[in-house]
Amino acid sequence: MNIHASVPVGILGASGYVGQELLRLLAAHPGASVAFATAESAAGDVVEGHRLLKAADAPLGRAEIVLLALPHGVSGRYVREVRAAGKRAVDLSADFRLSPEAVYGLTEYTRPRVAEAALVANPGCYPTAALLALLPLARGGLIDASREVVIDAASGVTGAGRNPTRELLFGEVAEDYRAYAVGNSHRHLPELKAALAREGGFTGDLVFTPHLLPVKRGILETIHVPLTRLLDQVSAEGLYEAAYEGEPCVRVLHDALPSLKDVVYRNRVALGVVAVADVRRPCLTVIAAIDNLVKGAAGQAVQNMNVMLGLPETLGLVC
Amino acid sequence: MNIHASVPVGILGASGYVGQELLRLLAAHPGASVAFATAESAAGDVVEGHRLLKAADAPLGRAEIVLLALPHGVSGRYVREVRAAGKRAVDLSADFRLSPEAVYGLTEYTRPRVAEAALVANPGCYPTAALLALLPLARGGLIDASREVVIDAASGVTGAGRNPTRELLFGEVAEDYRAYAVGNSHRHLPELKAALAREGGFTGDLVFTPHLLPVKRGILETIHVPLTRLLDQVSAEGLYEAAYEGEPCVRVLHDALPSLKDVVYRNRVALGVVAVADVRRPCLTVIAAIDNLVKGAAGQAVQNMNVMLGLPETLGLVC
Amino acid sequence: MNIHASVPVGILGASGYVGQELLRLLAAHPGASVAFATAESAAGDVVEGHRLLKAADAPLGRAEIVLLALPHGVSGRYVREVRAAGKRAVDLSADFRLSPEAVYGLTEYTRPRVAEAALVANPGCYPTAALLALLPLARGGLIDASREVVIDAASGVTGAGRNPTRELLFGEVAEDYRAYAVGNSHRHLPELKAALAREGGFTGDLVFTPHLLPVKRGILETIHVPLTRLLDQVSAEGLYEAAYEGEPCVRVLHDALPSLKDVVYRNRVALGVVAVADVRRPCLTVIAAIDNLVKGAAGQAVQNMNVMLGLPETLGLVC
Amino acid sequence: MNIHASVPVGILGASGYVGQELLRLLAAHPGASVAFATAESAAGDVVEGHRLLKAADAPLGRAEIVLLALPHGVSGRYVREVRAAGKRAVDLSADFRLSPEAVYGLTEYTRPRVAEAALVANPGCYPTAALLALLPLARGGLIDASREVVIDAASGVTGAGRNPTRELLFGEVAEDYRAYAVGNSHRHLPELKAALAREGGFTGDLVFTPHLLPVKRGILETIHVPLTRLLDQVSAEGLYEAAYEGEPCVRVLHDALPSLKDVVYRNRVALGVVAVADVRRPCLTVIAAIDNLVKGAAGQAVQNMNVMLGLPETLGLVC
Repeated sequence: MNIHASVPVGILGASGYVGQELLRLLAAHPGASVAFATAESAAGDVVEGHRLLKAADAPLGRAEIVLLALPHGVSGRYVREVRAAGKRAVDLSADFRLSPEAVYGLTEYTRPRVAEAALVANPGCYPTAALLALLPLARGGLIDASREVVIDAASGVTGAGRNPTRELLFGEVAEDYRAYAVGNSHRHLPELKAALAREGGFTGDLVFTPHLLPVKRGILETIHVPLTRLLDQVSAEGLYEAAYEGEPCVRVLHDALPSLKDVVYRNRVALGVVAVADVRRPCLTVIAAIDNLVKGAAGQAVQNMNVMLGLPETLGLVC
Repeated sequence: MNIHASVPVGILGASGYVGQELLRLLAAHPGASVAFATAESAAGDVVEGHRLLKAADAPLGRAEIVLLALPHGVSGRYVREVRAAGKRAVDLSADFRLSPEAVYGLTEYTRPRVAEAALVANPGCYPTAALLALLPLARGGLIDASREVVIDAASGVTGAGRNPTRELLFGEVAEDYRAYAVGNSHRHLPELKAALAREGGFTGDLVFTPHLLPVKRGILETIHVPLTRLLDQVSAEGLYEAAYEGEPCVRVLHDALPSLKDVVYRNRVALGVVAVADVRRPCLTVIAAIDNLVKGAAGQAVQNMNVMLGLPETLGLVC
Repeated sequence: MNIHASVPVGILGASGYVGQELLRLLAAHPGASVAFATAESAAGDVVEGHRLLKAADAPLGRAEIVLLALPHGVSGRYVREVRAAGKRAVDLSADFRLSPEAVYGLTEYTRPRVAEAALVANPGCYPTAALLALLPLARGGLIDASREVVIDAASGVTGAGRNPTRELLFGEVAEDYRAYAVGNSHRHLPELKAALAREGGFTGDLVFTPHLLPVKRGILETIHVPLTRLLDQVSAEGLYEAAYEGEPCVRVLHDALPSLKDVVYRNRVALGVVAVADVRRPCLTVIAAIDNLVKGAAGQAVQNMNVMLGLPETLGLVC
Repeated sequence: MNIHASVPVGILGASGYVGQELLRLLAAHPGASVAFATAESAAGDVVEGHRLLKAADAPLGRAEIVLLALPHGVSGRYVREVRAAGKRAVDLSADFRLSPEAVYGLTEYTRPRVAEAALVANPGCYPTAALLALLPLARGGLIDASREVVIDAASGVTGAGRNPTRELLFGEVAEDYRAYAVGNSHRHLPELKAALAREGGFTGDLVFTPHLLPVKRGILETIHVPLTRLLDQVSAEGLYEAAYEGEPCVRVLHDALPSLKDVVYRNRVALGVVAVADVRRPCLTVIAAIDNLVKGAAGQAVQNMNVMLGLPETLGLVC
């Protein structure tokens, strides 16, 4: 059934939740095949039919492009090895997201640069949802910088990784819900602010509070946006419709609000906007939902890879 | 072990989640006993050792005080019957929360009036958490009314009641998370605004967004508060410590943030405050957690009942 | 990418969990397309890009084959309409599972008959797992009929359908676990016994106890099998390996036991066998896991449809 | 309200799930108070108002009785220290459950010996449920030893302890279900067999398969019992009613089956029995549910402690 030649793809870091999702997506990808997959602690294991190697044993030469799902701080060194071997790379860690060496891979906004890039820095999960929610307003100059944009974000536990810690045990997380990194201390914030400024020209204040949800996957962000002028419900929805017209991975909802079950296992952001009643100054509530492992990580990496390789952008993805 | 005479308590509406929680709490209450319990659809069933009656058959004369956990809109009529029978009442519905006929039973703020009241309107679950979080700042004149207070609230499903609807099925709620009543359309908002004005003197704008959590019980509210002046972390915690000194059902956390598991099955609010970094205007993030069925409903009703009867305020409650 | 001509497929009953899964699977199927989809209560809604019709308005003539995911007792009438229109059908209800009019679609055991069938009765979810677990032993004459085969089965809630009832509310199911239809009263038992006799020649006693799990999807069955002769661990695994050699949708595990997360969203049964220690008479514990909506319903229906149409058996399925 | 003198109780091992449950139960116990509580890794932390000590610093002399919730293999040494200090002890580990030095604390069956004991070995969680389910039949000579008793047991994750391992992460356990220690390899089996023989005179074969449930607390065991003679439904229920008449912590259900939500947070076993239809030889299905942390551990320890101290048996417990 596959009329594309199969592009050999290397995966560095295949034992975490993101790496496993990369394997799952590539197993169903009609235009790519896994050339090798590595995992330090799980080397020798067979996952989705691939025997995991040590990173040091990765046959970089066999891949046309390499996807890296390594820990932050570790990835940088391997990116340089991949580049030294003359291979293009999509790095899913945070290591190059603020670096001029890489193109920031928020596909809907940086598509032409991604197509040409040797190295793409795949966005963080929280920034992906926030940027897709805020950039239409930022680009329209509609955000009132004299009040705060307030982002309350909730993520499933796979966003916290697969290393065993007490606070991520089922016995601690089930039936619980809590905030963390409160008061603008989350490490994704600089990435988000930089991209909002660069792609949207917005440099006002954000207050970002992440929360841990008792679900496996999914991020929902509820964003309070102070507006420079009143937008009624129809205008607000129209603005988002226009901004994302033709985008295969963005759904602007009408008569419904995003929920995790609309987006899990899909490379999709679902967006909902609601004009706020009963306030003296104009405000909009924007809600964005993604699967943190798909559009927030592995799926967007495949989307970027497709763009880099000149393949149809959503090949192998369910949007 | 009980040195109090046992006060006979009537319960109208004992088959919903709140009514069942009233029965559970009263079963462990050393100073009260259940005189009767009613439930229209479940009449004849035995719950916690009590055979449920039809409301029309309730022997009101046998109770010294009546707790009503009936649906909004239905409760009003029964409150009048109870009052006509000369009995004091705590109404857990919304029917009297905006009415001058009742004392608003946010115990920590209205204790003396509750003690004298013939009718107490027990606060809604969302307003309980929001008021306990905001009133110390409101009373101190610390909230900047030129920016919005943004309340993102998440509740377990028992807050939505026990009537079967498709959207509350396990197959729909598990692994999901979503907002509802977005844009200031939740029916608890007028109650919250009225109480903030009456008890705290605050009349600025609120933006309130409730969410449905895949947990059985618990509410967590993450509240963005714009401040009139800078409060550092120590001052902010000190303000809350002072406001709630000696309060048995309020915990101000230090070096920790509230989570649902701190509060479920307890008549407690857990409060955490964090000074927000990296913003141009002073802001505080306040987080409040309660059990929606206990401090948010049945527990606070028992707390109010204890105050009305002159019993120790936390008798029969785990705080 | 699709080199098969696309076969038009009709779906009757697309709003329940099974019907939605059919739509999800067909959306990703490279050799089939949805000709129409119906749902009485949700007619007019758009699901996976298809506007749902009333069954009475279904353009049967446009489909080459029809998949029916209608309630038991309702399906029979529509199957006759589909057949009267000259179309082949896969019926996912229980209505024809004991009928000589239909071929029983346990693909691995009835493949040649399915290929020729005008009407396939798709097996029930519990029988699918039990039969794939027991038939290798039954066909080998290895089950001791003088003792009971004991099947303890646990299913996620989507197995109970999508109609709202109190007992399926999140507030009732979360953190709970319970048996139902205890004492051989489940309606799947006659189907299971008939198929065990017909395909395996086994007519001994079964004791079947289903349970409701607080998960969305997945069935795990733990089966106690009294043996006519001792099988050591290696022989037991070898027997299953041999029985299912070359079967794309069956995984016999070694050094691991089946769990739901191995099988959800896949058209796969995972099987594990363990020789029981410390007993006087030989026994085997066999464990089978499937996704109740995929191999237990919609996936197996697509597998059967593929066989009927002469397509590759796993086309459009992740196994 | 407390008319009992408060007995000082020492707790060794207060940071695991069982130790925390002991603290929770003793906080609500009107006849006991915590003299000290220890936890090696969490020494210095304050839990339920008690600052945790190192075990080496425990002031054994201040306690009248000591409850030990230490790991298996570790507890033995501390039990000897407690005994050397002249204090009575309830050991919640497995270290003395097969030892003649201790009285086995299945309260309903060994009450008089518990009352006199210097050392009580508190039963394991799985054996507690299985013994309460099987002993009435065993004592009546009703179990047919020529066929296997098949016990399928499912436990919430707190039964596996609080040490962080990957397989107990929320991301692994949620939406999953699996068996473990299959084929009679669970370490609770010798305890169960010894107690069944000693208290019930039954020495036939058992096949025991534990499973991990995606819930925090609760055990449900579904037990297939081959009978020596036919018992109809009424007789079976009557037998259990008679066996447990007057027992405050045992509920024999009629017209209902046990579920976890009936028993969590309670020191109760719920028992249901169903005569099996459609089999050639008589069989009974017995279902038992307990809270693994309460009747399966900390609650039963308090029940035993109450008996040892001559207090009312259920003092401080909700049954």
